[in-house]
Amino acid sequence: MSTATDFPGKDVQLRINVSFQEVSAYRDEKKILIITDENIFDLHREKLSQYPCIRIGAGEANKTQGTADNIIQEMLEMNIDKSWLIVGVGGGVVTDITGYVASVFKRGISLALVPTTILAMTDAALGGKNGVNVGIYKNMVGTTYRPEFILFDYSFLDTLPRAEWINGFAEIIKHACIKDTEMFSELEQHSVDHYITNRAALRELVEKNIAIKTAVVANDEFETGERYQLNFGHTFGHAIENLYGLPHGHAISIGMVMAAKISQAVSGLDASSVQKIIKLLGQYHLPISLDTDPVSVLDALKNDKKRAGDHINFVLLNRIGEASVKLLSFDRLRELLSQTAQ
Amino acid sequence: MSTATDFPGKDVQLRINVSFQEVSAYRDEKKILIITDENIFDLHREKLSQYPCIRIGAGEANKTQGTADNIIQEMLEMNIDKSWLIVGVGGGVVTDITGYVASVFKRGISLALVPTTILAMTDAALGGKNGVNVGIYKNMVGTTYRPEFILFDYSFLDTLPRAEWINGFAEIIKHACIKDTEMFSELEQHSVDHYITNRAALRELVEKNIAIKTAVVANDEFETGERYQLNFGHTFGHAIENLYGLPHGHAISIGMVMAAKISQAVSGLDASSVQKIIKLLGQYHLPISLDTDPVSVLDALKNDKKRAGDHINFVLLNRIGEASVKLLSFDRLRELLSQTAQ
Repeated sequence: MSTATDFPGKDVQLRINVSFQEVSAYRDEKKILIITDENIFDLHREKLSQYPCIRIGAGEANKTQGTADNIIQEMLEMNIDKSWLIVGVGGGVVTDITGYVASVFKRGISLALVPTTILAMTDAALGGKNGVNVGIYKNMVGTTYRPEFILFDYSFLDTLPRAEWINGFAEIIKHACIKDTEMFSELEQHSVDHYITNRAALRELVEKNIAIKTAVVANDEFETGERYQLNFGHTFGHAIENLYGLPHGHAISIGMVMAAKISQAVSGLDASSVQKIIKLLGQYHLPISLDTDPVSVLDALKNDKKRAGDHINFVLLNRIGEASVKLLSFDRLRELLSQTAQ
Repeated sequence: MSTATDFPGKDVQLRINVSFQEVSAYRDEKKILIITDENIFDLHREKLSQYPCIRIGAGEANKTQGTADNIIQEMLEMNIDKSWLIVGVGGGVVTDITGYVASVFKRGISLALVPTTILAMTDAALGGKNGVNVGIYKNMVGTTYRPEFILFDYSFLDTLPRAEWINGFAEIIKHACIKDTEMFSELEQHSVDHYITNRAALRELVEKNIAIKTAVVANDEFETGERYQLNFGHTFGHAIENLYGLPHGHAISIGMVMAAKISQAVSGLDASSVQKIIKLLGQYHLPISLDTDPVSVLDALKNDKKRAGDHINFVLLNRIGEASVKLLSFDRLRELLSQTAQ
């Protein structure tokens, strides 16, 4: 993969493996506003401090309308106008809230994203979706809004906590499950530590995942078809993330195990593939089960964005590397859930 | 004009001169949510009460993020999902806030608008722009989001207060100034009362204005060129609307007088046309001046969305029926403003 490429036909420039300072090539430095969280600001002050900067609290609890309101208020006080570029530097919380604010501020202002975690690099910062949570419901408010460019500076990973590396591998394993048998095999041969210590292998893996996600998004920006497959593991995943306050990667890891078992019953995924998926998640230190009441999970699903009436669009695997979507009733899900829970 | 037409190429259906009850042709009645204000609900209960309904307070003071947050909270409690249609029934405040909420709720849900005022029918509900105010700054937060259809049921006008009729004629006169000499002459021959009492003349006038606005929007949905002309009178208009809490029509009436005088100095609008515009606004009971300090108005302009650095894009008239846009410096505007104020 080249180091600077485009979403096919989508006008989002991907600047891969370049220095953060390249953002200054896109605007007069006096018209670049950084939005980041306190952790990233403290850890990478030398990169960021030359720009005006709005800092938010770190963590999912800050992904709210209230935080967005505060950012907008600060932007108005700074007299930010539509000639500025707003750059979100951080993990998924920062890239989501920055994208959302940029999309609604004065009806849309230029946006760039600099993802600083594995999860944001391979998933959250790609594809234009953003959002804030409302109470326990994730991403209930948001837009689909295209950044001008996404910049990948791997030096941000030097300060990424090990727990966040593990968290990020959940989306990578998801991509392998729905799209790439070969990557699934490669992951089986390695470990989180292999990628933490081998930057060349990591770069290759991250870039493969960027290619998978951007190709799916380019084919289906507004999620009317293929893009929906990216929700593999996310239906239950989001529900338990909300109910139990789990890290996103942990929640979708458990969600993928549940979805794999349901796939065995519904779409013919073979038993050995289910076991392979469970083994791989465990190998990357991701949780594979949770003491959970299936009914309370189903109740939480009621407010899932993917719901259409009494049924839910559910992403299934036909085999490792190939997914499909099926409309399942809540009753059928309840039945399957109690069977697979045994 | 036909009674049901489309934005050319824009997929927004215009349902003109039909009954409100036609909304039920678009969705199962159990999946139609009405958003309206308390006044409209009380006055048109017989039309609205068969649908689930969220009511907001009437008036510009309620066009805030807080109101949007409350609507979203209620929608979540009602288990609204993406199969629903959200219908905003009201004036510009209701259509703006409903459009904004629909655009961000679960990253976008189907929207329809039923404008109930002259101003909303000929301007606010058309063109996809929505927004909420932040403090004194109008529409600082919003999106451009296309409704599925816009329905015009003239029976809502039966309860429109006379002050709101007058308010609505400001945008109609604006359309005449920038696009339609013939309509300008027609307006000169009539009065607000002519249109209040002559429904056939009113319909023809409203439909002419819908055609003007939708044609401009269709050519330039995201305001990169021609659409900008619709801001005639709005640069100063928005500033004094914020500063003095004026009704929108009153504010842009005064803004148009200021812009016409500046046009005389900058773009060669002749003196008799300036007088004709002032006379026409007065004839429709719109205010044409305000005791105002030009410098405080300029300061308020600093946060206008249309600002680009130290200059502002300003809409001028070359003659009645033809507008142009010119980048003017704040210094030049200050100078012109003090000259024309004399």
